[in-house]
Amino acid sequence: MGKQVAVILAGCGAYDGSEIYETTLTLLRLDQLGIGYRAFAPDIEAHHVIDHRTQDVAEGETRNVLTESARLMRGDIWPIDELDADAFDAVIVPGGFGVAKNLCDFAEKGDAMEVLESLKPALAAFKEDAKPIGLMCIAPVLVPKLLGDGIAVTIGRDPGVSGAISAMGGLHRGCDVDDIVVDLEHRVVTTPAYMQAKRISEAASGIFKLVERIDEMIDQTRD
Amino acid sequence: MGKQVAVILAGCGAYDGSEIYETTLTLLRLDQLGIGYRAFAPDIEAHHVIDHRTQDVAEGETRNVLTESARLMRGDIWPIDELDADAFDAVIVPGGFGVAKNLCDFAEKGDAMEVLESLKPALAAFKEDAKPIGLMCIAPVLVPKLLGDGIAVTIGRDPGVSGAISAMGGLHRGCDVDDIVVDLEHRVVTTPAYMQAKRISEAASGIFKLVERIDEMIDQTRD
Repeated sequence: MGKQVAVILAGCGAYDGSEIYETTLTLLRLDQLGIGYRAFAPDIEAHHVIDHRTQDVAEGETRNVLTESARLMRGDIWPIDELDADAFDAVIVPGGFGVAKNLCDFAEKGDAMEVLESLKPALAAFKEDAKPIGLMCIAPVLVPKLLGDGIAVTIGRDPGVSGAISAMGGLHRGCDVDDIVVDLEHRVVTTPAYMQAKRISEAASGIFKLVERIDEMIDQTRD
Repeated sequence: MGKQVAVILAGCGAYDGSEIYETTLTLLRLDQLGIGYRAFAPDIEAHHVIDHRTQDVAEGETRNVLTESARLMRGDIWPIDELDADAFDAVIVPGGFGVAKNLCDFAEKGDAMEVLESLKPALAAFKEDAKPIGLMCIAPVLVPKLLGDGIAVTIGRDPGVSGAISAMGGLHRGCDVDDIVVDLEHRVVTTPAYMQAKRISEAASGIFKLVERIDEMIDQTRD
């Protein structure tokens, strides 16, 4: 059977949802490698809506994370409760500040953050089966509290965020935008993407490398 | 000076705005080729909002086209009134049904459609200076009424839409998803993208070809 990867989304937009370019580039590279994908998101109200033109909170506006994630998938989206790890070889979480606002509360609480409950069972099953897990941009802040202590990740070179990852029990490694950090033991791959990228082609170089490494790791799992 | 391309957007989402993957893939290829870009959109209320999960109209919800287009540009968006063709070597219009709902009213009126007034001066200036104009997916329906009669374009192989283009005075050529139609005389390049694509890598192949051809045509203009 062909390889299948689950992609976890948090809305649609860099400042309150999943980063649009990161998600699109992930799907492009998966598809170019012949890997099938299906996207999942929580059916919850978004933490808030950011007017991306002014960067202000759009007061009084509410949007649903699953509905907005559907925008990013041309309608093809599934509730995260329906994510069955048995049907997938790997899971990838693109970045965007929606990850730090809707999938956990890192944006508000820093290293005192909690992970969204509905995310936990799905990810725990991938970890248990030693299936590769990819995260990009700000998403690696999820790793210590979602997957456990002592897992090496990168968010690039931001001292505040990398310090918070360390404080939560993670291992942070500095990394350039076109590179990845691989924790071979825990099978976690991360790349800075827009935590570091100034141009879309820079983000693409690291994201493509992440997807290619996940592809190789799936081959190892299956062998 | 480096090449600069204007990109015209119509919101954010396949069914009521600019197609997210088409826009992202356009920006990726431009940036990979070292071409700068700036995106423009009209500051108007969107025709309607589609819930991309259910495909239904989200009754009572309103969104601004410029504000939602900002989402697709990580905030870096400009009102279409400020598009000065002199500052750009070419213009590209990605698809998505927002083009047929917000940049014209093709979705409602078919070949009796009108083009949004604020789009006309900007595009007329590119045409006058014989600068290349790229359009993808449904966007080529704009061509007859925006750029004039007898210009060859493609939207793939949809008989209804290609018939409407002919009825408006355009020339429609059937085209596969990984290919482009070039009207050398009028310097218009089109590709079917998601009018035809079943997979993101298919859309990418035609879109990358379109951007590469625009790049070559800019070289010819400058020589």
